[in-house]
Amino acid sequence: MSRRAPQPPRGMRDILPAEMRVRDALMATIVATFHRYGFSRIETPALEMIETLTGDDGGENAKLVFQVMKRGDKLQEALAEVAEDGSADIADLGLRFDLTVPLCRFVAANRAKLPAILKTIQIAPVWRAERPQKGRLRQFYQCDIDTLGLAPPLAEIELLSASAEALKALGFKNFRIRVNDRRLLTAIAHQAQIPEAQHGAVFIALDKLDKIGPDGVAKALAESGIEEQAIARLMTLTGIGGEMADDPLEALAQSFAAAGAAADEQVFTDLRTLLDHINIAGNGDFHAMFDLTLVRGMGYYTGPIFEFDYKDYPFSIAGGGRYDNLVGKLSGQDMPACGISLGFERLVTILEEEREFAAGTGDGVLALLYDKNTPARAVSETAARLRGAEGAVSLYPRAKRMGKQLGGLAELGCDRYVTMEADGSLGDIRVLSGT
Amino acid sequence: MSRRAPQPPRGMRDILPAEMRVRDALMATIVATFHRYGFSRIETPALEMIETLTGDDGGENAKLVFQVMKRGDKLQEALAEVAEDGSADIADLGLRFDLTVPLCRFVAANRAKLPAILKTIQIAPVWRAERPQKGRLRQFYQCDIDTLGLAPPLAEIELLSASAEALKALGFKNFRIRVNDRRLLTAIAHQAQIPEAQHGAVFIALDKLDKIGPDGVAKALAESGIEEQAIARLMTLTGIGGEMADDPLEALAQSFAAAGAAADEQVFTDLRTLLDHINIAGNGDFHAMFDLTLVRGMGYYTGPIFEFDYKDYPFSIAGGGRYDNLVGKLSGQDMPACGISLGFERLVTILEEEREFAAGTGDGVLALLYDKNTPARAVSETAARLRGAEGAVSLYPRAKRMGKQLGGLAELGCDRYVTMEADGSLGDIRVLSGT
Repeated sequence: MSRRAPQPPRGMRDILPAEMRVRDALMATIVATFHRYGFSRIETPALEMIETLTGDDGGENAKLVFQVMKRGDKLQEALAEVAEDGSADIADLGLRFDLTVPLCRFVAANRAKLPAILKTIQIAPVWRAERPQKGRLRQFYQCDIDTLGLAPPLAEIELLSASAEALKALGFKNFRIRVNDRRLLTAIAHQAQIPEAQHGAVFIALDKLDKIGPDGVAKALAESGIEEQAIARLMTLTGIGGEMADDPLEALAQSFAAAGAAADEQVFTDLRTLLDHINIAGNGDFHAMFDLTLVRGMGYYTGPIFEFDYKDYPFSIAGGGRYDNLVGKLSGQDMPACGISLGFERLVTILEEEREFAAGTGDGVLALLYDKNTPARAVSETAARLRGAEGAVSLYPRAKRMGKQLGGLAELGCDRYVTMEADGSLGDIRVLSGT
Repeated sequence: MSRRAPQPPRGMRDILPAEMRVRDALMATIVATFHRYGFSRIETPALEMIETLTGDDGGENAKLVFQVMKRGDKLQEALAEVAEDGSADIADLGLRFDLTVPLCRFVAANRAKLPAILKTIQIAPVWRAERPQKGRLRQFYQCDIDTLGLAPPLAEIELLSASAEALKALGFKNFRIRVNDRRLLTAIAHQAQIPEAQHGAVFIALDKLDKIGPDGVAKALAESGIEEQAIARLMTLTGIGGEMADDPLEALAQSFAAAGAAADEQVFTDLRTLLDHINIAGNGDFHAMFDLTLVRGMGYYTGPIFEFDYKDYPFSIAGGGRYDNLVGKLSGQDMPACGISLGFERLVTILEEEREFAAGTGDGVLALLYDKNTPARAVSETAARLRGAEGAVSLYPRAKRMGKQLGGLAELGCDRYVTMEADGSLGDIRVLSGT
């Protein structure tokens, strides 16, 4: 009578006990580190009003919202009004696609109850209706810290220090933190006399420098309709195509000075403070560098932006930036804000590839294997007594094929076992040799 | 320019730092207790295929599913086919309304990877599109433990012992555990010669005994079309309306014997073992009793059922039972299963009413209040040094109204503070006097 069992929805997955132990241990380490920096956990509902999610700041992600249908009479009304072209107004709620938009909604809605400066931790799933593919899930966890109410650079220093310490605590070493500032990108485009409407195209081209090279960038800019002289000014100002400077931030500052450009000196000072501090704290374990080609996709960034890379993994393991206008767009009242998001699923993937992680994370459970003929009360009372003496104890009826059973117990986090006969007598406690 | 900020969806709520600390502490206590009994955490996606959720076993809850719209071409096809009567096939996914149906789907889908006996912990939100009202949320956490692959009564003993110990660890005392068995309810109805189609009406009437009394039960049964003689047999067999027996389980067993009824003796033996064990373990802190009028709503229960009451709260704080057929309905292959669900939101509500819970749960964070003119690097380095010496440290620029600021810091979990002057010098570390 066996038939194919129902699976989880496409692109979403179940988490079994052994993997859950790893994830719980990683999350506990991350949260403990963030607590050391004074961040506090908060939580928002998984669902938001659809208008909150589909504003223009979500960029591409806003198009990937799982939409929840209206209910009852309102649904019937909406269905009656489906237009011939298929347009309809059937959804009133949506699942969040990130934790930043809900955070800004949270701050706007609870402003009266919140202190002037707020430092938050959010560890929670987000949902995106993307085409499922390797390494891209439709439900995945993000792990964000954000600082509301603080100006640069101290908020950024704390975010980067806490994130770097959390990664170190998880066992990551020699990761790189690339830092840029949206204000510098804008200043460069202005100085090169590129019209504002084309700034987006400039940023996209810069972002691709490591893939397409200086000539590729120039070509991409030309194809975007940017005039030759402006491209030349941009290349000179940024030094792209020239020798790599030892200190790219200092080189850019000099380049600005040479061009008589009106860059905000505070931006340079803040970035310098940020980089110096992180590199002192990194002490060789990790390092921060200025990278003019770091852009990041989201439209809402307004100041410093950053991304963490590890070895030659083709994706960043963390990223974030300052978004001083986003709370204001929701509430009409601006609030300085910046945040960083650890790519939790990616961290799990890397750690599982690099180490025998599961082996070391048993909960130290003692398995009590009882004979099926032992009276239930004797089994239960023995378990209670062992729990007092040995800690965690889990009951299992003894299987016929004990070798197979012992293998399965290790999977479940048991590290020792003891057998109980029908007359209630106990054998010795033995160590389980592991999976 | 201030306007009304967007709120969370109706019936859903944000959780602020102080409340989150309480919830995290409670969850950690619950999970630690369940670990001692050998239960392991698992997780399923928030979304399930709509067919998995809207089968007939979810009862009333299946009607409360938040439905997620199809996407892309499939949505357009579905919209083009909306019938004139408003029926449509627009949703392909839904948010889970409990953790039991997803658990059975999980076991069915992952059977080959799971051991023969599985003991799971799930702490996760569920969603129900109910009419919002006091104490009834549309997103709320459930905290379930379940045992798959074990027969009664040991699985039930472990579930009840672990749940009772978790409640004790949270500070609950003198709670009552009412126990019944669906097999007994069915045997009673059979013995009273009530047709199977009317068993549901019998159970519903019994469930109301404490509200409507024996005469009310008889009246409700008559109104359901059950004949007079059958009602009389039922009242005699159950002893409803007679004197309350000292030992209601024993009284029912005798009543069955007197009627020459064919009750399964193992059911009585199992319940007796269960009650005795829990009462010995309870040691006066909690007690278990047989209650023939306990029914519980879900259609899927097949054996022992239980519910935890506390003081005169008008709702149960935990409940569950055995559901041996549910995995089989999904996979075609039966598997013994039983579980218990702690009403996490209700526990939080009670504990917040009964105690100044927030006061004792500070994280011990030291607030470093720096003068705005202190160089960022000096602040950050001092914070790092203090973190080494004092543990958790959080940075805040010193506000003009320091008294108000100090009040807000306690809310954020700070228990001490130290001020830093513009020249970098530190004051003494002072204790925050609390909210």
